Amino acid sequence: MKTRIFVTLKNGVLDPQGKAIHHALHALGFAGVNDVRAGKLIELDLADGTSREEIEAMCNRLLANTVIENFRIEDM
Amino acid sequence: MKTRIFVTLKNGVLDPQGKAIHHALHALGFAGVNDVRAGKLIELDLADGTSREEIEAMCNRLLANTVIENFRIEDM
Repeated sequence: MKTRIFVTLKNGVLDPQGKAIHHALHALGFAGVNDVRAGKLIELDLADGTSREEIEAMCNRLLANTVIENFRIEDM
Repeated sequence: MKTRIFVTLKNGVLDPQGKAIHHALHALGFAGVNDVRAGKLIELDLADGTSREEIEAMCNRLLANTVIENFRIEDM
């Protein structure tokens, strides 16, 4: 059972990695970029029957820092 | 116009970050995890009318290292 976790910074949290990518895209001549936000993608291969609650516990305890990050769980 | 880029390591490329997450999940008592792969998620806010070709050029030139990484473009 494969699951994807998307971890993104909450709105209002500064994103220096995204800013650096934004600047680099401009420097390469890509003009039409208004904003860039960088996040993480974690692909989990889980034992069948792993509950949604358990996946959320993994996110809350390890995969995301819920003070500054949101996470979204997507089954594949 | 918002677009998401998913950057993942190609199959066969070692993923120490994923391995570290896997070990940490085990140490926290989450037993049913078979494998973990870590990737990147880049959210772009682009000017309307930016072509698919231009987005692919951004990925090939900056966002992904196509020797070891795949990328996938998803419009939102």
